[in-house]
Amino acid sequence: MDDEFYAKLKERIMRYFEGVNPTHDFMHTERVLNIALNIAEDENVDMDVLRMAVLLHDIGRKEQDESCGEICHAENGAKIARKILREFGVDEVKINKICHCIETHRTRRDKAPESIEAKILFDADKIDGLGAIGVLRTASFAGHLGAVVHNPEIDVEKTKAYSKDDSAYREFLVTHKNIIDKIMTKKGKEIAQKRDRFMKDFFERANKEAAGEV
Amino acid sequence: MDDEFYAKLKERIMRYFEGVNPTHDFMHTERVLNIALNIAEDENVDMDVLRMAVLLHDIGRKEQDESCGEICHAENGAKIARKILREFGVDEVKINKICHCIETHRTRRDKAPESIEAKILFDADKIDGLGAIGVLRTASFAGHLGAVVHNPEIDVEKTKAYSKDDSAYREFLVTHKNIIDKIMTKKGKEIAQKRDRFMKDFFERANKEAAGEV
Repeated sequence: MDDEFYAKLKERIMRYFEGVNPTHDFMHTERVLNIALNIAEDENVDMDVLRMAVLLHDIGRKEQDESCGEICHAENGAKIARKILREFGVDEVKINKICHCIETHRTRRDKAPESIEAKILFDADKIDGLGAIGVLRTASFAGHLGAVVHNPEIDVEKTKAYSKDDSAYREFLVTHKNIIDKIMTKKGKEIAQKRDRFMKDFFERANKEAAGEV
Repeated sequence: MDDEFYAKLKERIMRYFEGVNPTHDFMHTERVLNIALNIAEDENVDMDVLRMAVLLHDIGRKEQDESCGEICHAENGAKIARKILREFGVDEVKINKICHCIETHRTRRDKAPESIEAKILFDADKIDGLGAIGVLRTASFAGHLGAVVHNPEIDVEKTKAYSKDDSAYREFLVTHKNIIDKIMTKKGKEIAQKRDRFMKDFFERANKEAAGEV
């Protein structure tokens, strides 16, 4: 596929990002693409499958958010993607490969990523939840919920997601602290390790600042 | 003033923090108090004036937010503080000193802090806008506005505060990047320098991550 194809595909899908929470806007997709291309350098990859899978991986998210999680954005996204890719004349074998990537990119997944392209999308998506960008995303979502800025003594068990207690730090403890163990590719692990360390150091520092220690 | 006095004062003022944005909730006031007490160790300070000034410095904020900035929270806060402190039987000389601190703690101020207690409140309040806590506060407020998570190429001149462009990074560039130059006390400068460096490094890293460089 050439640049014109991707420009048209991007134009076609932008509507699915209108009104989504900024933590999953098209800038997230663009960052995931950067990371995925970086990981792909070390792997034997069908670049068109990977590129299309990344571009389309979050197009089902608006329905998930609007249904308060009832609809799974990965499954829903794969369905929408299939329809769009057929419109664009992509062959069915490639479409199946792309849809496998999209269906399996969620952390809470029944289906595991099997192809290398699916593993790269999974890793790149998780990596964008780590590091400085990960901090900004978790804090942004906390702000969206009206949650506290920082509570070093948060008890994860006694507090709830999507509540005023659901600070960036809580989200880090619940979702991002151990995500490194799930990263599947070699290059993905290298990138994730640095971002994981940065994020852990960040919250250690935030705890010290909150206590007036630094 | 003894512990009982402060416990009662805290109880009396908590209502002013109900429904305020989490970036200026009572946890912010508690963090500012920690920082202020730290700075005060190196200065000759009326600790009661300082402690009351810190506790009361943001009690006028709800009206500022509700009036979209028409009402100044520093001026308004000083008026409310005067009323409360009279209720609590604090003498007028002390009240005047406390109100001077509250009136002059804003960055965009007509009146400059003159007393050491006012300088310490000013510094401590600004320091809580720096460092890891500063990052979390700016990102939380961006999330509250529904602003983008991170745009390294943001043009501050062409974008507006309180808009979808008003990311944590924009807020950093506009409000926090040069605040270190306004810090007045010696110990305040020491603490601020570390938090200033941390915040600058953080956004440099976020820019690199956004470009897929790290």
